[in-house]
Amino acid sequence: MKMVRNAAGRFVPVEVNDKPQVPFPGVNKYRPKGRKAGALIPTVIDYPADGNKVVPDLKTALQKCGLRNGMTISTHHHFREGDIVSNQVFDICAQLGVRNLMWFPSASFPCNEPILKHVDSGVVHHIEASMNGVMGAYVSQGRMKKGLGVLRSHGGRARAIQDGEVHIDIAVLVAPAADQFGNANGISGDTNCGVLGYAEADLLYADRVIIVTSKLVPFPCIPIYLYGHYVDYVVVQDNIGNPDKIVSGTTQITRSPDRLYIAELAARFVKTAGIMKNGFSLQAGAGGISLAFTNSLARMMKQSGIKAGWVHAGSTKYVVDMLEQGLTRAIVDGQAFDLEAVRSLRDNRNHIPTSTLISYNHHAKGNYLNLVDVAVLGATEVDVNFNANVVTHSDGMMLHGIGGWQNCMFAHCTILAVPSFRDRIPVIVDKVTTLCAPAEMVDVVVTERGIAINPRRTDLIDATKHSDLPVRTILEIKQEVESLCGKPSRPKLTDKVVAVVKWVDGTVLDSIYQVT
Amino acid sequence: MKMVRNAAGRFVPVEVNDKPQVPFPGVNKYRPKGRKAGALIPTVIDYPADGNKVVPDLKTALQKCGLRNGMTISTHHHFREGDIVSNQVFDICAQLGVRNLMWFPSASFPCNEPILKHVDSGVVHHIEASMNGVMGAYVSQGRMKKGLGVLRSHGGRARAIQDGEVHIDIAVLVAPAADQFGNANGISGDTNCGVLGYAEADLLYADRVIIVTSKLVPFPCIPIYLYGHYVDYVVVQDNIGNPDKIVSGTTQITRSPDRLYIAELAARFVKTAGIMKNGFSLQAGAGGISLAFTNSLARMMKQSGIKAGWVHAGSTKYVVDMLEQGLTRAIVDGQAFDLEAVRSLRDNRNHIPTSTLISYNHHAKGNYLNLVDVAVLGATEVDVNFNANVVTHSDGMMLHGIGGWQNCMFAHCTILAVPSFRDRIPVIVDKVTTLCAPAEMVDVVVTERGIAINPRRTDLIDATKHSDLPVRTILEIKQEVESLCGKPSRPKLTDKVVAVVKWVDGTVLDSIYQVT
Repeated sequence: MKMVRNAAGRFVPVEVNDKPQVPFPGVNKYRPKGRKAGALIPTVIDYPADGNKVVPDLKTALQKCGLRNGMTISTHHHFREGDIVSNQVFDICAQLGVRNLMWFPSASFPCNEPILKHVDSGVVHHIEASMNGVMGAYVSQGRMKKGLGVLRSHGGRARAIQDGEVHIDIAVLVAPAADQFGNANGISGDTNCGVLGYAEADLLYADRVIIVTSKLVPFPCIPIYLYGHYVDYVVVQDNIGNPDKIVSGTTQITRSPDRLYIAELAARFVKTAGIMKNGFSLQAGAGGISLAFTNSLARMMKQSGIKAGWVHAGSTKYVVDMLEQGLTRAIVDGQAFDLEAVRSLRDNRNHIPTSTLISYNHHAKGNYLNLVDVAVLGATEVDVNFNANVVTHSDGMMLHGIGGWQNCMFAHCTILAVPSFRDRIPVIVDKVTTLCAPAEMVDVVVTERGIAINPRRTDLIDATKHSDLPVRTILEIKQEVESLCGKPSRPKLTDKVVAVVKWVDGTVLDSIYQVT
Repeated sequence: MKMVRNAAGRFVPVEVNDKPQVPFPGVNKYRPKGRKAGALIPTVIDYPADGNKVVPDLKTALQKCGLRNGMTISTHHHFREGDIVSNQVFDICAQLGVRNLMWFPSASFPCNEPILKHVDSGVVHHIEASMNGVMGAYVSQGRMKKGLGVLRSHGGRARAIQDGEVHIDIAVLVAPAADQFGNANGISGDTNCGVLGYAEADLLYADRVIIVTSKLVPFPCIPIYLYGHYVDYVVVQDNIGNPDKIVSGTTQITRSPDRLYIAELAARFVKTAGIMKNGFSLQAGAGGISLAFTNSLARMMKQSGIKAGWVHAGSTKYVVDMLEQGLTRAIVDGQAFDLEAVRSLRDNRNHIPTSTLISYNHHAKGNYLNLVDVAVLGATEVDVNFNANVVTHSDGMMLHGIGGWQNCMFAHCTILAVPSFRDRIPVIVDKVTTLCAPAEMVDVVVTERGIAINPRRTDLIDATKHSDLPVRTILEIKQEVESLCGKPSRPKLTDKVVAVVKWVDGTVLDSIYQVT
């Protein structure tokens, strides 16, 4: 495998899964040429005059879509750990004797483990996606033999589809509610997941599109998130996912005192640095610390009489509370995490659904995340130069996907809110195991041992220098942790590349190596 | 000019404006190959980090878009006779000394007459669009010397953009409300026009997009009809159109007793033929007879306890009344005609905006109009074989655009509701001056002298044969009219083609000849 050193100093393959690659040339240095992919031109002649695209089952739909060896099949992960349909798809493919498929989900989760046997058997050639838990471990261990894993951010995946970097033959899109023409949404069903924005690029660009729903509603489905004039077949089945794992009844804030303190510190930083001002915008996530941060910031906003212009969210009851209390004018919502979020999306016109093509797309005429004032994110590692990692642990195991993390890095102030160590393994390291975000993207690291500001952000340093915030250098924090936990050992890796991490623009940022 | 005889027996040029053409091969006979157009791949690097795309004025925006000789510039006609921005665009182009532009509006109206001087002077090379009134007359008289007029239906135009048949260099899209990022709608401004669906294809496929608004709203514009991540520049100016001519305060039903009777007859036909049943769908137009038809049908529905599933509309207070009285579950709205429609679109979630790409697109995986049970349309002429004309009069003058008329022809029952003569000129003729819809598309002709059913529709003949409806042959009606008005003289035309009529799929259906 021919490797080159990219602008971040990382060695990356020049070809991945038989496609030539552009090594990462630096942030905002890559300017693509050319035109977006053109979807197949269909004609209404080939679709039912009564608009009824319902076929008996998923197997029939896949056969009618011309399923054959070597195709790329996409699914989406709005159902998260409750997804069952991706697994069904590949069980059917195996049953039909189809081989060498590429699975291209918007993310893969431990619930998708049953698909790994189809990789072993050759039904699935390889997977290109964010890989969480057992899915990532499988790749790290070098068990996906025929192809490399390709990790893209949510926005990077949508962009790859748009740009023609990945061509989808068949998209299987699960929707909580759909009409027989294929118009669909995620809020009018019995097992709702809120918005369906991960599926939009698949819908627009795939040759064939199947909607799988458990609730057939009268035409027209209201509201319409996915438009039926892009849909080939509709499948209705009783069970489209495990409702308990799709959205939760309630979302829980972390109870860890350390993590609550980190969240509070992050919120205090945002306030002190002057970011929290009327009309500002924030990215609100659904992780434990992010939820607590949102909650703390909302409290400070209320105390100070500050109102946000808009919140870009993975939506939860905490941001819904902000909307309903007038602390934000709008929620722009990429993913709903609880039932309160689904209710708000349905009832409140200022709670707007969005998609990865709109919010996160680096090859658009601007995107929403680039307009956000502050985003608070997690990380597995951050190094003393502020480079960050979110996919591998310090032992080299790839256990997490990128999600929207790289995309949110484009917020005007990006804060990594992380514990200084986990299981006695320091989070701040000399050099990240895998580079997922170059140093210039990370502005602030908040830990329970203090706040480190990237020296590049002299504006943030100035804005907080006379405050009571525990601002320290990242090296100080690192040394303090190492005095407690010891210097971490370097991961034991082979020189075999098992996956690559793409930057938001499709260039290759780093390689992930097989663990020993 | 090389001409061939197409499947409808009409002679059409094999090349139009330097592009090779497909002669109409029959309804539903043309299957395109290939892929849709791919828009330019932009990158966020080239757009403002704060999302503010506002530039001082339209001239600056056009210059920043790289305006130059030979470009295609599109505008839309949601503002109808109130449009002023299209005229501004070409005044600016003239001022900048740019030449040989193609103007590609979604329709042109008499208010656009000021652009004709720019055609005369060579700033505009030619116009491809539906041409109403003075615009059409100009072409009919052979005064657009450098190119042919190309008349497409609303759906045909969107399809042409999608398929790459027409490439737009710069789209100038007027929106009543927009944020500085370019998200826009037609309902939150001071001079509203309702939906913005004519502009969607332009937005998605043009190289450069300018939004012109009179009301800058906070980000994010709510709701979003046009997405800012496709927008290059935003221009804010005091006046974007003449509000009195955009939507009217109230829409008026025809007061002509003959036309009221025609509308009533059409409604009785729909009821008697069994089309008016629970869950049915109709296309509701805004012409005088169409409004009266909708009103009559709504009354019959109420009397019979019938509820429609959905109405596809040019929306008016009459369809809004239907929605609010529970006579239809939903309005799918392509164009708002009065303030009540704008209000409903804003406040009622079952009043859904649509676009020509969704509702009317023949190269989609189905479209909405193909699902409609009944559409009532007008016509300038219909011949004894049920071929219909909507663009020229019997004197050969092209005075009307196609609009959604061809697209609505795909409704399961298409009714032409027309007076049997106008100004002593019979509407039913031996042969239409210009063929705009082949005979098989027209199911019923309703006049004040009776109802003629296309012999192909034996189902409709059977369904109404024991009724009290005045069903007659089209020949009988024609002869009766001719006995009153005399046989109409044939139009006096030269053999010079000045424009072509495209069918919904982009094939050439007929030629329009210069009048003598």
